[in-house]
Amino acid sequence: MRMYDIIRKKRDGEALTKAEILYFVNGYVDGSIPDYQAAALIMAMFIRGLDDQETVRLTRAMAHSGDTLDLSRFGDVTVDKHSTGGVGDKTTLIVAPVVASLGATVAKMSGRGLGHTGGTVDKLESIPGYRTALPAEEFLEQAAKVGIAVIGQTGNLTPADKKIYALRDVTATVDAIPLIVSSIMSKKIAAGSRSIVLDVKVGSGAFMKTVEDAEKLARKMVEVGKLADRRMTAVLSDMNVPLGQDVGNALEVAEAVRVLKNESHGDLREVSEVLAAHMVRLSLGYSYEEALEKVRHAIDSGLAFAKMKEWVDAQGGDTAVLDNTDLLPKAKFRQAVLAPKDGFIVGMDTEKLGEAGVILGAGRAAIGDPIDFAAGLSILKKTGDRVEKGEPVAVLHTNNSEKLAEAEKEYLSGIRISLEEPPKRPLIYKVIT
Amino acid sequence: MRMYDIIRKKRDGEALTKAEILYFVNGYVDGSIPDYQAAALIMAMFIRGLDDQETVRLTRAMAHSGDTLDLSRFGDVTVDKHSTGGVGDKTTLIVAPVVASLGATVAKMSGRGLGHTGGTVDKLESIPGYRTALPAEEFLEQAAKVGIAVIGQTGNLTPADKKIYALRDVTATVDAIPLIVSSIMSKKIAAGSRSIVLDVKVGSGAFMKTVEDAEKLARKMVEVGKLADRRMTAVLSDMNVPLGQDVGNALEVAEAVRVLKNESHGDLREVSEVLAAHMVRLSLGYSYEEALEKVRHAIDSGLAFAKMKEWVDAQGGDTAVLDNTDLLPKAKFRQAVLAPKDGFIVGMDTEKLGEAGVILGAGRAAIGDPIDFAAGLSILKKTGDRVEKGEPVAVLHTNNSEKLAEAEKEYLSGIRISLEEPPKRPLIYKVIT
Repeated sequence: MRMYDIIRKKRDGEALTKAEILYFVNGYVDGSIPDYQAAALIMAMFIRGLDDQETVRLTRAMAHSGDTLDLSRFGDVTVDKHSTGGVGDKTTLIVAPVVASLGATVAKMSGRGLGHTGGTVDKLESIPGYRTALPAEEFLEQAAKVGIAVIGQTGNLTPADKKIYALRDVTATVDAIPLIVSSIMSKKIAAGSRSIVLDVKVGSGAFMKTVEDAEKLARKMVEVGKLADRRMTAVLSDMNVPLGQDVGNALEVAEAVRVLKNESHGDLREVSEVLAAHMVRLSLGYSYEEALEKVRHAIDSGLAFAKMKEWVDAQGGDTAVLDNTDLLPKAKFRQAVLAPKDGFIVGMDTEKLGEAGVILGAGRAAIGDPIDFAAGLSILKKTGDRVEKGEPVAVLHTNNSEKLAEAEKEYLSGIRISLEEPPKRPLIYKVIT
Repeated sequence: MRMYDIIRKKRDGEALTKAEILYFVNGYVDGSIPDYQAAALIMAMFIRGLDDQETVRLTRAMAHSGDTLDLSRFGDVTVDKHSTGGVGDKTTLIVAPVVASLGATVAKMSGRGLGHTGGTVDKLESIPGYRTALPAEEFLEQAAKVGIAVIGQTGNLTPADKKIYALRDVTATVDAIPLIVSSIMSKKIAAGSRSIVLDVKVGSGAFMKTVEDAEKLARKMVEVGKLADRRMTAVLSDMNVPLGQDVGNALEVAEAVRVLKNESHGDLREVSEVLAAHMVRLSLGYSYEEALEKVRHAIDSGLAFAKMKEWVDAQGGDTAVLDNTDLLPKAKFRQAVLAPKDGFIVGMDTEKLGEAGVILGAGRAAIGDPIDFAAGLSILKKTGDRVEKGEPVAVLHTNNSEKLAEAEKEYLSGIRISLEEPPKRPLIYKVIT
């Protein structure tokens, strides 16, 4: 078999066999296939597409390109959640303790943030003492004892995805559905949980700008997961506005705590309930309605918050900051952004709001950039809200006062104010099971 | 400007501007653009295509990516010939002395062979003493004095083409017309001759398998050349059978000498006459009919052969081997290939016959492989010829007797014998001016 012939086949729009896809994935990981041949093949895949079988083959080859996590000791109750990435999305911090308090096991690896989207690992690191790297045995023991362990990506999981994603990132081949599916699902399959709930974000701050595209992606991921013997559900949720109020690491931890303390009842709680209910349904065998009731009870009763503290404590974090979130890292500068005119907020460019957070120090422009845990935004007014000229619409948090003007400008360029009240948007567009 | 955005544009089928193409070509040559980004762009170019303007822009950017040859001291009489590559194509060895004997100047760089197609430089090196590398001044002085100098590619001519071609060769992006056009024409434009005759081969042994494809390629090359102020003509000639009788370096020199000595009157002489006549027409301003008459006279009179000896002598070669071609390198083993049955040869897979030559040692499987100058094939029966079972259809020449069986098998798999006489094919399909 020759890589040249595999490239030629895909270039001409032919489907690749299992053996050909394995040859590419394994050869690229072991270095026998050079970047330029991989780049040519991936561009051909991008333009010519992959059929369903090819997508499954690619996903599996990538999932098994390195180590895989064996969670079989936990039986059928392991459950994972994956978000395609949004702004202000701190649902993992909420749903993990909720479902663990109900008997599911969340043994999860999470990512770091890049660009306008945040990462759970960064958020957890804003809790003093929290260890995002645990040895494998300790990770599994904690999951067994507490029901939750959340760490950063470790070991040699899906090296093929790491290499292919890095290449796609610099060759304009990121946003093709089969490639996105194989990237996400290979990691989820390698990560070992029996049940997987996908939170596919739709809107201005998401990869997928339309419900139609998001549904296509979601259906493919569900299908590929099922073929790998996973229990799958995908929830299409709105990302035309940031989720919840806060964007930025410590700010998001504080907001998640407010939800778990039953102090916050907006969009963030609603999306978290839906995701958690599907996780409970898949992993513990309840109906959706039963699961939703249990989820609500777990929050209302304080059991989920207690589980969060148990989890953070087990992983070395200081639980005092959860009891009193004022103890979390705090920014020196907090500047209000004022409405430039009267009217309704009729639209938010969520990506721009996320970029304002990056400017303030809450995120990374490039991999490895440092993060200011205290930096971020508190969004006071969202799409549909009425504002008066001069009224605060957001608060910018940063330790670098020189960035305030630029971030404010970016923020204001990301909201549109108009006199006519905009139509309401659903928070959940669709559930695909 | 960012390479990422250029890739994205072409990926989505948009046309690239002059500035974008220059950015890519110059950045790839200076190393600031890595192979993998170039590979992604070239695959996108392959699949999405380039329009006429983009092709011209790419050709010019490549032509001026390094040194260019200044032949202006020779005025308007410089003429170049380029063949798209075939098996047994030794026309350069014939047309160069013919047109030089009539007053044109051939100051030409030629290539080496690769795969089933041969290269003029290898053929010339089978003449003992012939120097295929000359310092620039010596090359130009010889062209001025003798009217011909033919050397290997030298200096830093079209480094963009070298790099891009090497990349295309390993990424399955060779056979797209705009990329072929830019590769060939950038070299021809950089090589400085005022007139260029293209010999576009059509058939089983050629890049272009159909007259239609060959004509598309030829028209584009003629157009691009004219836009660069060159006098252009393209001849579409047949490569469904090897040209002439012999394939292999020393064998082809001997066959060219037979044509120039007026001892050979088949397809090779006919194609050579047509090509030479167009070269004379373009460079010296005669009509085609006048030019053809002059070309025939140059051969019949021996003037062209005298010019060949003058040329080889000037370039250090031993002219005794031209007077007596038995003195050229000779193979130890000469094995006849016998017809397996009665009938007509109804088809030849010219590429396979060329591969048989490579097996015998006449060509290279990879760049840098050594060549056996004496190795090759003498083709005794070609498409349309009647054969009787057991009659020799070819002679295999090699110094490595262990390769004979494999080469014979390859040769026989490349000819088809059937009882029905095949229709005659034209030798020249079309001339595009």
